[in-house]
Amino acid sequence: MIFRSLVQTKQFSSGLCREHETRMARKKLAVAVPASMISDTPHLREKTSKIGIIGRALAIFRVDEIIVYADDPKVNQIQELDFIATLLSYMETPQYLRKRLFELKPELQYAGILPPLRTPHHPLQGRIRDLTVGEYREGAVVSKAKNGVLVDIGVEQPALVPDTQLALNRRLSVKITQLDGQIEAQTINKQDIPQYWGYSVSAENHSLVTLLKRRQFDLTIGTSKFATRFQDAVQRLGERWRKADSILVLFGAPSRGLHEIAKGEGVNLNFLVDFVLNTVPGQGTETVRTEEAMLASLAVLNIHFGSLN
Amino acid sequence: MIFRSLVQTKQFSSGLCREHETRMARKKLAVAVPASMISDTPHLREKTSKIGIIGRALAIFRVDEIIVYADDPKVNQIQELDFIATLLSYMETPQYLRKRLFELKPELQYAGILPPLRTPHHPLQGRIRDLTVGEYREGAVVSKAKNGVLVDIGVEQPALVPDTQLALNRRLSVKITQLDGQIEAQTINKQDIPQYWGYSVSAENHSLVTLLKRRQFDLTIGTSKFATRFQDAVQRLGERWRKADSILVLFGAPSRGLHEIAKGEGVNLNFLVDFVLNTVPGQGTETVRTEEAMLASLAVLNIHFGSLN
Repeated sequence: MIFRSLVQTKQFSSGLCREHETRMARKKLAVAVPASMISDTPHLREKTSKIGIIGRALAIFRVDEIIVYADDPKVNQIQELDFIATLLSYMETPQYLRKRLFELKPELQYAGILPPLRTPHHPLQGRIRDLTVGEYREGAVVSKAKNGVLVDIGVEQPALVPDTQLALNRRLSVKITQLDGQIEAQTINKQDIPQYWGYSVSAENHSLVTLLKRRQFDLTIGTSKFATRFQDAVQRLGERWRKADSILVLFGAPSRGLHEIAKGEGVNLNFLVDFVLNTVPGQGTETVRTEEAMLASLAVLNIHFGSLN
Repeated sequence: MIFRSLVQTKQFSSGLCREHETRMARKKLAVAVPASMISDTPHLREKTSKIGIIGRALAIFRVDEIIVYADDPKVNQIQELDFIATLLSYMETPQYLRKRLFELKPELQYAGILPPLRTPHHPLQGRIRDLTVGEYREGAVVSKAKNGVLVDIGVEQPALVPDTQLALNRRLSVKITQLDGQIEAQTINKQDIPQYWGYSVSAENHSLVTLLKRRQFDLTIGTSKFATRFQDAVQRLGERWRKADSILVLFGAPSRGLHEIAKGEGVNLNFLVDFVLNTVPGQGTETVRTEEAMLASLAVLNIHFGSLN
């Protein structure tokens, strides 16, 4: 099952359109984390903190998609999957749309402590007078109009998106086209927005092996402390990175690394992904937590290949 | 004033001894963070979480010392300095010594949520039968004996450190020399222990300029989003890094970057430190928090120069 809550409108289309590819050749960067990454933290509040660090890391390094996968075949992890996905989606949603798009669920009890993303799609301005024609905003459909839909874009009045029929509460990205009188806007694909425009969230109630069969990426990178040091593979990795349009970086849990997770499914990790790399060589601690590994790994990849995506 | 609480015994001596220098040439790596790094978080519990991330980052990347400095000349920051230093020291202290070395202070109210470091100096074994001769342990003086001091090393009985006079509750590193009958151990300098053996904490109630005058480092690196991209300076930095015995990496606060902090003291940051580098080029968020910048920057430095320290 693919998690399809409120984030479905934010799923990437399967490929970039030709025009866009020629213009910017922007790569799609995805990361995968195991559902059990929060299981070593007993309190809901600290689980929430952990997700907060993950969400921030995704935004800092302009990640396009996060996939949460089931890493323990012995346990039903649907609750953890749902928890992580809900909190990450909530965090990625502009504040002015959250009440409309999220019910008050128990897992959101500590959502107030989630740090703000401070990305371009979370504008601080909430007044019409601050809007400019050509600006992008995230919105949600509040009602249908005769000639289109009215969309909440976080200012005093909704914007009219003409010639469009969309379901109530559907989330969408728009570009402001008119500010005199009725605000008007047109829908726009996320990948055509030049700034970083947030991440999509997929909770896959599937094992690592199934996930990698179901989803196609040009380049897959696993992270492990039992692996080649990043710097020893950087040249080979760079060659593959340059050619790839879509890249997936996979993380394990502190209690069970990627090697162990793959082994539990009867597979050797080295045959499952293109690279297995140690991005924290010589670590001073016995384990590196998923959120720590993510910040460290994305920082290292960003320095080496960031200008390429 | 230098913060001299319970961590004074853990301060590094001013230079590595000759013998050691020849043997391993291990560099001293220090980081500096501003007291206001916790000021954007209202709750004590989340402030504690933030410090938890910092402490973990220090241990993962084997940092020798963390210095907390006063970044806002308009405010008395002694409370923040003390809070950050106390929590970082608490986290760095092996669990079996914490009750002895720390009073129950209000700032430790949420110390229970601090993640364990899982470093070699925080052993999980607490039984004599698990000890081996030649093993290193952290200890604290519990009483004086006729021929030395008795030291709690986290097992059922204290170890005798002969021919030594040390104050009660003084923390020290020891090497086990005898296990038959009375356990015996000898004191050892931290820098002579081959594993990573924790960080020391200094709270300096001084401005950035004063801190850099008072403390001497062979190489100082400031981090800023308004700076040369790390990869554009990596060669020059590498040359300096190789020659340096002591290195300081400085961080600003999300509300006030290093440039602004220096400017507030009437100084240009570029004249204050050897390098100002952007370790998170192309960041997708408006700001990067101190703890995020630390994990990212240390990850990048570790990949490039880690094998050199």
